[in-house]
Amino acid sequence: MQWKRKHLLGLEELAADEIMHILETADTFKEVSTRSIKKVPALQGRTVVNMFYEASTRTNLSFQLAARRLSADTLAFSKQGTSVAKGETLVDTARNIEAMGVDIMVLRHQSSGAPWLLAQHVKCSVVNAGDGQHEHPTQGLLDLYTIREVAGKIEGLKVAIVGDIAHSRVARSNIWGLRKLGAYVMVVGPPTLIPLEIERMGVEVCHDIDRAIRECDVLNVLRIQLERQAGENSFPSIREYIQLFGLTAERLRKRPDLIVMHPGPVNRGIELSPEVADGPQSVILRQVANGLAVRMAVLFLLANVA
Amino acid sequence: MQWKRKHLLGLEELAADEIMHILETADTFKEVSTRSIKKVPALQGRTVVNMFYEASTRTNLSFQLAARRLSADTLAFSKQGTSVAKGETLVDTARNIEAMGVDIMVLRHQSSGAPWLLAQHVKCSVVNAGDGQHEHPTQGLLDLYTIREVAGKIEGLKVAIVGDIAHSRVARSNIWGLRKLGAYVMVVGPPTLIPLEIERMGVEVCHDIDRAIRECDVLNVLRIQLERQAGENSFPSIREYIQLFGLTAERLRKRPDLIVMHPGPVNRGIELSPEVADGPQSVILRQVANGLAVRMAVLFLLANVA
Amino acid sequence: MQWKRKHLLGLEELAADEIMHILETADTFKEVSTRSIKKVPALQGRTVVNMFYEASTRTNLSFQLAARRLSADTLAFSKQGTSVAKGETLVDTARNIEAMGVDIMVLRHQSSGAPWLLAQHVKCSVVNAGDGQHEHPTQGLLDLYTIREVAGKIEGLKVAIVGDIAHSRVARSNIWGLRKLGAYVMVVGPPTLIPLEIERMGVEVCHDIDRAIRECDVLNVLRIQLERQAGENSFPSIREYIQLFGLTAERLRKRPDLIVMHPGPVNRGIELSPEVADGPQSVILRQVANGLAVRMAVLFLLANVA
Repeated sequence: MQWKRKHLLGLEELAADEIMHILETADTFKEVSTRSIKKVPALQGRTVVNMFYEASTRTNLSFQLAARRLSADTLAFSKQGTSVAKGETLVDTARNIEAMGVDIMVLRHQSSGAPWLLAQHVKCSVVNAGDGQHEHPTQGLLDLYTIREVAGKIEGLKVAIVGDIAHSRVARSNIWGLRKLGAYVMVVGPPTLIPLEIERMGVEVCHDIDRAIRECDVLNVLRIQLERQAGENSFPSIREYIQLFGLTAERLRKRPDLIVMHPGPVNRGIELSPEVADGPQSVILRQVANGLAVRMAVLFLLANVA
Repeated sequence: MQWKRKHLLGLEELAADEIMHILETADTFKEVSTRSIKKVPALQGRTVVNMFYEASTRTNLSFQLAARRLSADTLAFSKQGTSVAKGETLVDTARNIEAMGVDIMVLRHQSSGAPWLLAQHVKCSVVNAGDGQHEHPTQGLLDLYTIREVAGKIEGLKVAIVGDIAHSRVARSNIWGLRKLGAYVMVVGPPTLIPLEIERMGVEVCHDIDRAIRECDVLNVLRIQLERQAGENSFPSIREYIQLFGLTAERLRKRPDLIVMHPGPVNRGIELSPEVADGPQSVILRQVANGLAVRMAVLFLLANVA
Repeated sequence: MQWKRKHLLGLEELAADEIMHILETADTFKEVSTRSIKKVPALQGRTVVNMFYEASTRTNLSFQLAARRLSADTLAFSKQGTSVAKGETLVDTARNIEAMGVDIMVLRHQSSGAPWLLAQHVKCSVVNAGDGQHEHPTQGLLDLYTIREVAGKIEGLKVAIVGDIAHSRVARSNIWGLRKLGAYVMVVGPPTLIPLEIERMGVEVCHDIDRAIRECDVLNVLRIQLERQAGENSFPSIREYIQLFGLTAERLRKRPDLIVMHPGPVNRGIELSPEVADGPQSVILRQVANGLAVRMAVLFLLANVA
């Protein structure tokens, strides 16, 4: 297919064949990072700017590295040490940076919808690197890529997303992507962490992780955001959460074929026990490696849109 | 002409033909940023270091991008996370960085005169990216470049600089540059924001923005530094400032040919109304784009000084 | 010789011929930074990541520049604005970054031993850029390189290390390196700043700087960490320290041939008087320049290990 979108904002708006096209493009880039010379000249002379209004290690580095391995020039700026402190709006900051001749802006922002707003006001491409509790499409894509790589397919698989579904952009992008590619999706967690009416997204709600383990092919376990829990108390206690939903080797014993995913960073001993995080069923580091290939594919496609 | 200066410290010390030579060199670089491959090998293997002791988004990114588009290696350091916190002097920090083999240092510093001090102690080139309330020569140059581009000339034009003249390095660099190239310069603002005896710089003082609008070809509107106002109270209130000096569509109605400039970031609704900032008379984003070309020219000339 | 180590963790574990091999490799790179095109394609397409958990200007910039001059891609991350704030362990952060396809990690960390821990958990190379109060091997190597360059040899020289020996990773790496290469080492300072039983490292303890000046060929003067002193009070007062151990022109008068070194940043007027720091006997800026060549050599050797 011919790629036609200028922006990658969310998986909700992509068609199944567009998602597949990104995954297939990522196949061709995956090999690059295994070479000793990890570089192709595809985006030579293009400029990619990382605009991160929220802290991030892996997504920020992954996008920077993806751009460099395509030979693009990269600029990064974060909230500290910039005019953001002087109260400039996101759109004004972005239009100024764009005026310097930028090809792609990669935006992480605490407000849901910020990348859509940006896309309306700039002429360059915009990639959503996480907006509020809304979407994180490249995380969704790398999760899809990893499932397809490890399980050989996505259609017909049963995938459980476990944890704080309510506040998770990773959950939302996964649900859109998995549903479009024909997977059956179960969301698993305590009622306080599962949004009302989420069934409308075409998923099954389940409050019993042991049932999810019995029935599913893949468990994508989300990070419990302890910093949020401190304020809101969405569940009685960490201790109780671990007991009811923590994924342990004990719980996994009967399903040695189950694939365990996690977007990182892992709270070891909370949502995943250390044996599970580092065990043979965990594909966490493959997710990270695939993230680079997927982001190279996204930057490449957007930079070469017709 | 043959460029002979090793440093770009201020516009006060440049001759008219030197300023014109920078602007003409920028003409040749302006086109580079409009290409899909935005890169020339002019400074391949050279090292440019950004030393920013004050927060900055656009100037910092603009210099970094200018250096990259010339194929230079760039290093950036800011006050946070460095030995500056350990109390090392500017000169010691700079001489250490220079010892690593640096070609050009780009310095932003809160103290007026800091780039001159630096230039006396290092062998590499120094570019002033803003020193205290003194000069910001590349901003002055990009303003000159933009006026020349939009109005077709500088000599004989009437240019008003509006706002906090007293604390503005942008005002100072503009005045020096405009006067040297033969423009008539008016400074406009409340008496508390206009330095005594500024007429000695060859400018007219005016306290009436409506007269400036009637008489001038260009209005360069400065940012009101709200953070400074909080402490000093240089004028009665923001509300009164807006009423007396805020540039609105209403005020501009009779002069649709007037060019409106602003060094950014804009306080929307204070010194400029949103309609004016985004309107057809505003050349704010052209200033940003031209800034990149001017900075490429400056880095190129300094790196190739005889 | 054939270089066989994957990591550079400390000088304690290196053999004399390995240290010499690094110094000789640095000879070939030293010239690169004096060219106008300061770049060789040796590490084209490789990725070097700087992981700095402690503030640093010169070591951080020096490693970044060394990697760039070898044409490697570089990524830098520090504690601020990253997932480190979310409580991720060093090993988890590192394994995630490694999964992106990294060749060399350069780690500065406040905990002694952190680089060894890291080397056990990643497949890429690890360089210790300073761990707690333990080792700072590239500083040790650049000090050795500088002594060899200025004095023409190391074997048989008498070298005094002056100051806070107890808390200094620079002292430790210097002692290991100097002893292995056959220098006689004296440690000089007040008893409270010299660790018990340091003689076991093969050094002489001396509390009289004037004797050290009389007897030695080289004085490597350490930085007094004023920020530490505030809390611990390891010596009565700064004033008394200056009187007893401060290196002044007066003290140096009888030894115009003595070489004065300092790892920087210098506390001018405390451990070194300004005349000494900037005087003809000081090789401080040569140390910085040599640091770049030594780090290029280290990155080159590790990236090309058999």
